[in-house]
Amino acid sequence: MTFKTSIIRRAQFNAAHRLHNDQWSIEKNNDIFGKCNNPNFHGHNYILEVKVIGEINPDTGYVVDAKILKQIINKEVIDQFDHKNLNLDTSDFRHLIPTAENIARVIYDKIRINLSIDLELKIKLYETENNSVEYPA
Amino acid sequence: MTFKTSIIRRAQFNAAHRLHNDQWSIEKNNDIFGKCNNPNFHGHNYILEVKVIGEINPDTGYVVDAKILKQIINKEVIDQFDHKNLNLDTSDFRHLIPTAENIARVIYDKIRINLSIDLELKIKLYETENNSVEYPA
Amino acid sequence: MTFKTSIIRRAQFNAAHRLHNDQWSIEKNNDIFGKCNNPNFHGHNYILEVKVIGEINPDTGYVVDAKILKQIINKEVIDQFDHKNLNLDTSDFRHLIPTAENIARVIYDKIRINLSIDLELKIKLYETENNSVEYPA
Amino acid sequence: MTFKTSIIRRAQFNAAHRLHNDQWSIEKNNDIFGKCNNPNFHGHNYILEVKVIGEINPDTGYVVDAKILKQIINKEVIDQFDHKNLNLDTSDFRHLIPTAENIARVIYDKIRINLSIDLELKIKLYETENNSVEYPA
Amino acid sequence: MTFKTSIIRRAQFNAAHRLHNDQWSIEKNNDIFGKCNNPNFHGHNYILEVKVIGEINPDTGYVVDAKILKQIINKEVIDQFDHKNLNLDTSDFRHLIPTAENIARVIYDKIRINLSIDLELKIKLYETENNSVEYPA
Amino acid sequence: MTFKTSIIRRAQFNAAHRLHNDQWSIEKNNDIFGKCNNPNFHGHNYILEVKVIGEINPDTGYVVDAKILKQIINKEVIDQFDHKNLNLDTSDFRHLIPTAENIARVIYDKIRINLSIDLELKIKLYETENNSVEYPA
Repeated sequence: MTFKTSIIRRAQFNAAHRLHNDQWSIEKNNDIFGKCNNPNFHGHNYILEVKVIGEINPDTGYVVDAKILKQIINKEVIDQFDHKNLNLDTSDFRHLIPTAENIARVIYDKIRINLSIDLELKIKLYETENNSVEYPA
Repeated sequence: MTFKTSIIRRAQFNAAHRLHNDQWSIEKNNDIFGKCNNPNFHGHNYILEVKVIGEINPDTGYVVDAKILKQIINKEVIDQFDHKNLNLDTSDFRHLIPTAENIARVIYDKIRINLSIDLELKIKLYETENNSVEYPA
Repeated sequence: MTFKTSIIRRAQFNAAHRLHNDQWSIEKNNDIFGKCNNPNFHGHNYILEVKVIGEINPDTGYVVDAKILKQIINKEVIDQFDHKNLNLDTSDFRHLIPTAENIARVIYDKIRINLSIDLELKIKLYETENNSVEYPA
Repeated sequence: MTFKTSIIRRAQFNAAHRLHNDQWSIEKNNDIFGKCNNPNFHGHNYILEVKVIGEINPDTGYVVDAKILKQIINKEVIDQFDHKNLNLDTSDFRHLIPTAENIARVIYDKIRINLSIDLELKIKLYETENNSVEYPA
Repeated sequence: MTFKTSIIRRAQFNAAHRLHNDQWSIEKNNDIFGKCNNPNFHGHNYILEVKVIGEINPDTGYVVDAKILKQIINKEVIDQFDHKNLNLDTSDFRHLIPTAENIARVIYDKIRINLSIDLELKIKLYETENNSVEYPA
Repeated sequence: MTFKTSIIRRAQFNAAHRLHNDQWSIEKNNDIFGKCNNPNFHGHNYILEVKVIGEINPDTGYVVDAKILKQIINKEVIDQFDHKNLNLDTSDFRHLIPTAENIARVIYDKIRINLSIDLELKIKLYETENNSVEYPA
């Protein structure tokens, strides 16, 4: 018996962001988001782990070729988010608060459409050394 | 379709402990626990990862607010275990051997009661760089 | 109610390898495996995480004794792969391409036979800081 | 014979910044600073290591008390830079380009004035996993 | 022209300790050492880096053989401190407060006597992820 | 007063190597180099830190532009050593044993000639997590 296998590819991008709900008052934004609500933005080195789950191809020994997965990550994530202001420079977070949770979901959707249907996808995103998220859980 | 999302918060505490089963002879304790049975204790920098799984709140973009999760961890774990002797200074390990497995279970129970029923909880605890445990598996 | 618990033991080995399918032409091998196909080999510091899942033994507080798990890893993996050429020095990869995926599966099989049937096993293998695999997924 | 001893304290802050020389044309700024010149800013998790060199106090066994050093770092660096836009929210970088080199020098000056004259100070600042600076060299 | 070369060997040990000056009152000990003064001890995973500086031997390409350096570290440090209570189980800290600074100096002296006079020695000791010391500075 | 400033750039390469002195018998090679003498080679993920020391350019805030330093490292080190067999695929180690010490010296010479005379250079090379070297010391 064999099981499915995961391959995980790690990447990084550096971005500015601000957590702000424009349906809320200044006070409520400050109360909920604290210093993450700074109108002048702050930033992070985001560390991304993209996990793809599938069968090992017996001819290559690969689930997916890491070079191809790297190209997908570069095109869909690094080129769009690295050295950007997530709130101002991307269309993804114009109406979506760029919390780590939401960034992970957006990245999932961007990578998902590049993968064959028989491959499962999971995203892990570190916002800091102490805070990370996974989607799907 | 959307999935549940995890948020992971990392924390640390430094503690002394001794692995000892008081139902056993000195020889058997030494045989099973080896140098971890040192009656004068030894210690570790424990690294804790608390994972909470749930739905993203669309108003905040959070599964849970990391600040609140940090407060729970501080109150239930750091304040009780940091710079303590787990065997002598806590009630949790008076009759329970403070292996990493049991420490993780105790931490699970302490944090679980602070979380809403619709959130799932997982604990990962590193005792050293080379040894860690997860509860639930 | 209690859940199963995982214990994870980390280890390392340094090895040379070459990715090559001897059913393919030089051109196809080069096309698929690129610089990993170098006939003179290249190498890695492999970091291995062995996860064993089971019930905590109430007498010891252990799922499995980490010392025994370390002995199994040393006998089945480190002694066989460390400072070796995976293609030339091992029988495991004589007819199997030593991708991280396949190495993880081989390690799984080697360790599985040393564990009691009621314990579940998972392997994570880092080939580099940026590339890792898990088996089973 | 005894030598001087160093104590190193590590801390973190998350900030947005933009590299821009307002004496230069848009083209020259873009040529030199590339995507770091993004007018909407980008950001980093800065990791700071503050090294203090001196004699060990025989009564305490400390060069300096790590708690006091932590307070100095919090007051002079974390409170001023964490979750801030270095260009807009601080006076330090109004006329100084916030490269890692310049940030390290500014931090050196802020901490230096809090230390006794017989203690030597060195700053290391990681802007990313792959880029760091030291001041003095 | 060639320069001297350093080789750094990393090792770990886990120990319990207590910071306490028996010339002082309970109040003063508590004031200076805080929770590190816990009479029941606490503990750490100490990470040790031993740096040896010298000329490269042209026959071996080594400054010193890492295997021999590892043996010295095991004999002088790991065998004596690992899984020990530094205050109770060692003679080194019977009259010396086991701060990271003093532990580094003790380790320096223990290793120094095993090295040829033409080799320079430096010790780095991490007490936690955020606190480390170097001796000589 | 200002001091000189360091900038450190980190990079990686994966290579196979064998430690062997062809002036020595098989027995002496085995005695000195042990499993590192395996005639079929083994390998490592080498982590390289290139430190350049100089004055900060007041117009750019840089000691050297990290992008240019990265290009030098890619041309002189990564393109020549990554996914290579250091003994067979490079001219540098045809008559020089590829210990970490010697690799660091070779890298120093390759990068040194690309840097202006007023900049100082230091190389740190990790062969494994536990073994690293610095040149100059």
